[in-house]
Amino acid sequence: MKVTVLVRPRDGILDPQGEAVRRSLAGLGYPAADVRAGKVFDLDVDADDAEGARRIADEIAGKVLSNPLIEQYQVEVAG
Amino acid sequence: MKVTVLVRPRDGILDPQGEAVRRSLAGLGYPAADVRAGKVFDLDVDADDAEGARRIADEIAGKVLSNPLIEQYQVEVAG
Repeated sequence: MKVTVLVRPRDGILDPQGEAVRRSLAGLGYPAADVRAGKVFDLDVDADDAEGARRIADEIAGKVLSNPLIEQYQVEVAG
Repeated sequence: MKVTVLVRPRDGILDPQGEAVRRSLAGLGYPAADVRAGKVFDLDVDADDAEGARRIADEIAGKVLSNPLIEQYQVEVAG
């Protein structure tokens, strides 16, 4: 079952990559602010139903894909 | 206007980060396959309407946030 996990820096946590992008964009004249950079993971989880896939993906996201101290994650199970 | 840009490796392009995650997950006993890793950017674009925000975000995504040779991007305009 196809699952997408979005991992983003928590509010208030410094995000050097996002800040670097914001500075580049400003230098190029693009009107963008508040840039935050994170990661997206698409994976195929072996589960019987969407609920099971979400449970596994939640565990993977919290334990492997993110650092809960500084990042938050969001799980989306496809259709 | 809040915009989210998702940048993912194109199909067929090697994805060492995704492969490393897949191997870690397999080692930990998680039933996940086909892991692909990409980036997510949230930004606030200065535009009059959603159409304008999408146009600016498209340009930023193609020219700054992604490498079109090996990555594809997807733009989502909030609300």
